[in-house]
Amino acid sequence: MSEIFNGISKIKFEGSGSDNPLAFKYYNPDAVIGGKTMKEHLRFAVAYWHTFAAGGADMFGAGSYVRPWNTMSAMDAAKYKVEANFEFAEKIGVPFFAFHDRDIAPEGDTLAETNKNLDVIVAAIKDRMKSSDVKLLWGTTNAFGNPRFMHGASTSPNADIFAFAAAQVKKAMEITKELGGENYVFWGGREGYETLLNTDMKLELDNLARFLKMAVDYAKEIGFNGQFLIEPKPKEPTKHQYDFDAGTVIGFLKTYGLDPYFKLNIEANHATLAGHTFQHELAVSRINNMLGSIDANQGDVMLGWDTDQFPTNLYDSTLAMYEVLKAGGLGKGGLNFDSKVRRGSFEPADLFYGHIAGMDTFAKGLIIADKMLADGKFESFVADRYSSYTTGIGKDIIDGKVGFKELEKYALDAKIQNKSGRQEMLESLLNTYICESK
Amino acid sequence: MSEIFNGISKIKFEGSGSDNPLAFKYYNPDAVIGGKTMKEHLRFAVAYWHTFAAGGADMFGAGSYVRPWNTMSAMDAAKYKVEANFEFAEKIGVPFFAFHDRDIAPEGDTLAETNKNLDVIVAAIKDRMKSSDVKLLWGTTNAFGNPRFMHGASTSPNADIFAFAAAQVKKAMEITKELGGENYVFWGGREGYETLLNTDMKLELDNLARFLKMAVDYAKEIGFNGQFLIEPKPKEPTKHQYDFDAGTVIGFLKTYGLDPYFKLNIEANHATLAGHTFQHELAVSRINNMLGSIDANQGDVMLGWDTDQFPTNLYDSTLAMYEVLKAGGLGKGGLNFDSKVRRGSFEPADLFYGHIAGMDTFAKGLIIADKMLADGKFESFVADRYSSYTTGIGKDIIDGKVGFKELEKYALDAKIQNKSGRQEMLESLLNTYICESK
Amino acid sequence: MSEIFNGISKIKFEGSGSDNPLAFKYYNPDAVIGGKTMKEHLRFAVAYWHTFAAGGADMFGAGSYVRPWNTMSAMDAAKYKVEANFEFAEKIGVPFFAFHDRDIAPEGDTLAETNKNLDVIVAAIKDRMKSSDVKLLWGTTNAFGNPRFMHGASTSPNADIFAFAAAQVKKAMEITKELGGENYVFWGGREGYETLLNTDMKLELDNLARFLKMAVDYAKEIGFNGQFLIEPKPKEPTKHQYDFDAGTVIGFLKTYGLDPYFKLNIEANHATLAGHTFQHELAVSRINNMLGSIDANQGDVMLGWDTDQFPTNLYDSTLAMYEVLKAGGLGKGGLNFDSKVRRGSFEPADLFYGHIAGMDTFAKGLIIADKMLADGKFESFVADRYSSYTTGIGKDIIDGKVGFKELEKYALDAKIQNKSGRQEMLESLLNTYICESK
Amino acid sequence: MSEIFNGISKIKFEGSGSDNPLAFKYYNPDAVIGGKTMKEHLRFAVAYWHTFAAGGADMFGAGSYVRPWNTMSAMDAAKYKVEANFEFAEKIGVPFFAFHDRDIAPEGDTLAETNKNLDVIVAAIKDRMKSSDVKLLWGTTNAFGNPRFMHGASTSPNADIFAFAAAQVKKAMEITKELGGENYVFWGGREGYETLLNTDMKLELDNLARFLKMAVDYAKEIGFNGQFLIEPKPKEPTKHQYDFDAGTVIGFLKTYGLDPYFKLNIEANHATLAGHTFQHELAVSRINNMLGSIDANQGDVMLGWDTDQFPTNLYDSTLAMYEVLKAGGLGKGGLNFDSKVRRGSFEPADLFYGHIAGMDTFAKGLIIADKMLADGKFESFVADRYSSYTTGIGKDIIDGKVGFKELEKYALDAKIQNKSGRQEMLESLLNTYICESK
Repeated sequence: MSEIFNGISKIKFEGSGSDNPLAFKYYNPDAVIGGKTMKEHLRFAVAYWHTFAAGGADMFGAGSYVRPWNTMSAMDAAKYKVEANFEFAEKIGVPFFAFHDRDIAPEGDTLAETNKNLDVIVAAIKDRMKSSDVKLLWGTTNAFGNPRFMHGASTSPNADIFAFAAAQVKKAMEITKELGGENYVFWGGREGYETLLNTDMKLELDNLARFLKMAVDYAKEIGFNGQFLIEPKPKEPTKHQYDFDAGTVIGFLKTYGLDPYFKLNIEANHATLAGHTFQHELAVSRINNMLGSIDANQGDVMLGWDTDQFPTNLYDSTLAMYEVLKAGGLGKGGLNFDSKVRRGSFEPADLFYGHIAGMDTFAKGLIIADKMLADGKFESFVADRYSSYTTGIGKDIIDGKVGFKELEKYALDAKIQNKSGRQEMLESLLNTYICESK
Repeated sequence: MSEIFNGISKIKFEGSGSDNPLAFKYYNPDAVIGGKTMKEHLRFAVAYWHTFAAGGADMFGAGSYVRPWNTMSAMDAAKYKVEANFEFAEKIGVPFFAFHDRDIAPEGDTLAETNKNLDVIVAAIKDRMKSSDVKLLWGTTNAFGNPRFMHGASTSPNADIFAFAAAQVKKAMEITKELGGENYVFWGGREGYETLLNTDMKLELDNLARFLKMAVDYAKEIGFNGQFLIEPKPKEPTKHQYDFDAGTVIGFLKTYGLDPYFKLNIEANHATLAGHTFQHELAVSRINNMLGSIDANQGDVMLGWDTDQFPTNLYDSTLAMYEVLKAGGLGKGGLNFDSKVRRGSFEPADLFYGHIAGMDTFAKGLIIADKMLADGKFESFVADRYSSYTTGIGKDIIDGKVGFKELEKYALDAKIQNKSGRQEMLESLLNTYICESK
Repeated sequence: MSEIFNGISKIKFEGSGSDNPLAFKYYNPDAVIGGKTMKEHLRFAVAYWHTFAAGGADMFGAGSYVRPWNTMSAMDAAKYKVEANFEFAEKIGVPFFAFHDRDIAPEGDTLAETNKNLDVIVAAIKDRMKSSDVKLLWGTTNAFGNPRFMHGASTSPNADIFAFAAAQVKKAMEITKELGGENYVFWGGREGYETLLNTDMKLELDNLARFLKMAVDYAKEIGFNGQFLIEPKPKEPTKHQYDFDAGTVIGFLKTYGLDPYFKLNIEANHATLAGHTFQHELAVSRINNMLGSIDANQGDVMLGWDTDQFPTNLYDSTLAMYEVLKAGGLGKGGLNFDSKVRRGSFEPADLFYGHIAGMDTFAKGLIIADKMLADGKFESFVADRYSSYTTGIGKDIIDGKVGFKELEKYALDAKIQNKSGRQEMLESLLNTYICESK
Repeated sequence: MSEIFNGISKIKFEGSGSDNPLAFKYYNPDAVIGGKTMKEHLRFAVAYWHTFAAGGADMFGAGSYVRPWNTMSAMDAAKYKVEANFEFAEKIGVPFFAFHDRDIAPEGDTLAETNKNLDVIVAAIKDRMKSSDVKLLWGTTNAFGNPRFMHGASTSPNADIFAFAAAQVKKAMEITKELGGENYVFWGGREGYETLLNTDMKLELDNLARFLKMAVDYAKEIGFNGQFLIEPKPKEPTKHQYDFDAGTVIGFLKTYGLDPYFKLNIEANHATLAGHTFQHELAVSRINNMLGSIDANQGDVMLGWDTDQFPTNLYDSTLAMYEVLKAGGLGKGGLNFDSKVRRGSFEPADLFYGHIAGMDTFAKGLIIADKMLADGKFESFVADRYSSYTTGIGKDIIDGKVGFKELEKYALDAKIQNKSGRQEMLESLLNTYICESK
């Protein structure tokens, strides 16, 4: 039993009237919405890296988080964190966790030793899972933190690094399978470049594709049936990351014939860093049947780096859940809190405040989005707006019955009349849903 | 009687349950909040330029707005718009309007003729005001649209342009006074530079100060008692605008001894273009006793230009009204909708949808902000957070009783203990206010 | 004979020592570099829209450019501009021009009339081409300026607009063929959205693909052998443009099986608006065999809109020409000056200054890039950096001989040693090429 | 004698023809330009923090730099670095270094112990200075890295932190004096806020002013005659930093009557993060007589964080030196390389490559700027452009002889004629200076 969360009990739903900051106002796991419980809709996950592995350091300052393991040995800390993870997830009521290999166990002097460390902790996790409902949403590899990956992992100019990264993913995939992980994520931590002056972009992209192909093959070989996910990010830490955004990743996968094997893990903060809204990236993924999972957080739109804040913007969570519901849910995916408490929120209790903020924000977003879809006002408006494609010349266009010549003939006589897009009315309508949905 | 708004009646408050898109859900002019009516708190204004003078053109396309005056002569259109302005303001229930000189009357071939055109329309407005409760919030000068101002107005390298701008402000100030305008705004449309390679920044800033000094003198001379306002904007149309943001303008005014005569007119979209939140610019103005008025709109934070959208973000309106209430209100200032309907919202009805969206957003923001202040939870948190300055060494610092030596002595023995900033908890709390305040 | 450029003679190469601002310092059309003349390498084009159709208006001001056709009737002006175009291109020594349909002839009251206007001007152009060496680089359609395209063209929710745009592209393709145009460009002026609240993105993208397919079919039908080009742009005028960047467009084309028929027209300012360097977009296009043509201009990286400035940054032109040379040239494509003189550069002579600036900048860039490639220092550095893939485990990776298991085995024993990326040294080296190449 | 730079000799000037990457191409310390040597003009400084205290970590990865002190005890490392600093500065030929207190000596368990550590190292530095020409450009305090400063230093809500920061600055000022430092810098590392929801901005700014006032008083008391410098930065690590940009800092200083005691230390990367060009911030400082010193580096304009790259852009260095020369030099200030080698440039030799890149870039910039000013073409153009203010109505404006009434009278009859701003011609001219100046 860890002591870090002593004094904090299981977080309960107390409803919007509650004054208790350690209670949910909107997240009621068993409340049923559209035939599924909130818990089933929202499949939240705790991110091991931010919540247990991070210390609150930033580019201008050392770690600030007060944690009991700050003074322990690396392996003792790792074991302590296993317990902390489960205790936290159980108290906060989050059904999943997610990790990078290096979050859960420290690196040793050799890869063999590192893998041994991993095995010890994986066994501890597996053991702990027996007495818990908390499951593994996904595993991934940290192939960016160690200085060996300074020039990338599968896109490194150094073939030994490619090999090392392969070994690391192999192991991470094995432990993800071992722990029943439902997905496996590729975030290309340093798969990108710092300057084109020293970069062979073509070779790097070819190698990235070779690497992913090997991963597909190995999953097949070991019978890992989890969903493979790629997580777009446009920049940071490298100047340019190859998985820039959903559109770019889809193009890359299609170029190399890898699209059948991957879906996307969309992160809100990565979307805005790429110049897109969170909803945009979700919608692009959805219409390409590639929406796999979500990294739930938010950026500060006035700042140009990945702030990974806990999501508290109701517009974003509403429109995100609107896309998720339109996609028919996230399947094996979930809503992983790739969010860190601010450096000044250094007390263990802040982990609860942060997750409560995020969970309530998405619960409220779900409630609102469900109401929007149930009422169908937006969908009716859109259907009506595009109705000209369901009949006449519009239908002929859709059905491929006409070409430029027929269309010119039609256009020469057409009396064109547009309709207002009514953006202001729709934004106002969205506000009433946000304010009134219960 | 204009025909543009035929078929649209006075917009009424129907409450949040209403399905009528041409009704207010939150704006109830006579509802009393903290001893004042909503109408008194919110002092909304219609912006003549966006609502009556603009056509919907953008950099890649011609005007799209369908308006009856599109086919009239310039002076006929000007007269028609006067009626449209009052009819619109009365129907939508906005107590003020605001204009640039060139919005209300067309330029003639000479300045004399232009002024004559102005006189005709000013007389028509004055006449129409007799039968209306709609008043003038502020007037200003358009000294940026005519090509003569290509290099600036009071910061032009051409002294004749300085003189011309002076003549124009003189006249605009006179008509603002004539029409009972409560403020006079300076937005430095092209007061800035395109490239430093051809610019004498020092001379330009000196001239800007000389110009404002002349304005102060002339106001005194004619007994114009309206509040002078400067509206910061960082860029666009010029590469750099001198009135970059609140902090820069305050510095400029102090450098030239002009600070007693001016307050700031803060625009939301200009704030974000400068890299600030709207609330930040309002707070900076407030703590410098310079918060004069607001240009209510919003930008698209993913876009780098002034989109001037109708404000629909409840976070922004809530935190704006929070600052306004903490400032004790806007005094002579108001909330001017420097907002334009989207180019695709081209029908006259969209002007109603846009203003309803904006008014409801600020009304709801007022309701929420008032509740926040009434409850005092945020204020208590902040007071407690800084409480160390009310006693002991903190009080000595505030009282100027200690210097570096005394502080070093104290610090050598101090047992320092910080407290969490609780950002996540506070953001969560803000959400409950947004969702629950009625 | 036009009078607009009276007093300006053919611009000649006078070399870097010249003090004459109306002479080339670096552009010497007949100088041979790597077996081709500068003129063959650089295939410059004058952009009809900026140089002859535009007036210098911006969002805050009316047109400022002083042009003789400002007071002519639309068709008289159109005819005058034909002469001006050829006279300008001949005097400045640019071998190509490029246009949108609406640049060269005014719209009439009906599409039929518009097409008639076009025919008149096309005949005049064709006639004038007989006595000129100036050729058509590419034609395109302006399906964004007229208010009918307020919601897009082929992605409009209105099927009539799709038809109208089809008719317009059909005609524009015909006249491009008629005038010997070597390429046809698709810039999706308003192919995007303003808000997802009213948008069916899937249908819009499907329709965009249908439209391009029709274009491919029609080109085949009429025997138009020019290269089809898509020009990426991320935003502006719409909030989101579907052809966001090179990566996105490539993904879109592959999704719909259109990639064999299109190449990319990369614009520098569009690259930076998307968060990329100009070189990045060129490199992405090159390695995908999709580099078709270039819109030569530059943005202001401190500003968030398309400033379309004449290119004067030697780093950008050097690295652009470096990519072009590595691609083996632009083939049918060219370097089109999608650049406008600043609003304050309102005199006809500024058109010469602008083009001279751009041509000299690219000429110098060509000289530098050629020298870089001839010396091969950068290429050697890169080859050495990736040399581990030419032998041993690296070669096995490339050859597909190993998978995760073999790589793990290798990695467990590997002694990994990275090499510095030497970014600072390479940037310094680039500077010496910029300063020293003659 | 350190071993880190074994094998690297003193860097010499070999001229632009040299192929030696460990030689200067443009920086010739003894070359005379405008009556001063390059060394006197450029007063370069090595930044202790980037060059000796940093390890190459970023937000996604651990330190990568290979340094001999990586395995030493903190105090042994500190002593080793003193030697490394002087050896490096002497070999590279940089006359100054600059430091934060915490760069040179490690923190102890108490402030007293920390100060003791400092004393030991200061003594070592002082001793080493006896046998070296390398001097201290400025000292400063790191009051942002230790977690105690999580909420700011002089703007912390915790008075004990204010006191601690005061003690730290007191000591840092003393050692700066002890070592003959010519300036003392205030960079408000965390003087700003994360969210306004928990912030009393007024109190924080008042306290910042109180703190600076105490610094002024203490300098007087101990007879420290160095120049006080404030270094603007708009954001990072905090969401908002109070010293946003030059304009804001000047306004702040004037508000609190502190302007006589401070000048500005302008950093290139901070300028661009604030939305300004480097030249802009220098020019604003210059015309306010506040240009004190420069932090020489560059950002990546496509990235939104402080990348602190070695300056290699010749446009920036040229226009910076242009401003410096127009300001009559930097006085006590200098050009401090607040620049770090990229994480992938991890070898000690890269420190040489980085500094050579920066020094050559500024040397070339100096050569070009000096030539520009010697020729006076830009200055003549500007003087002519503003000449209307030297006579007639323009002179009357400058002399304060006219007001709005006189100007209106003048304007009613004025025949206004503007002149082109010739931006394109001037940018082209700048290019010829960059390419041709020797």
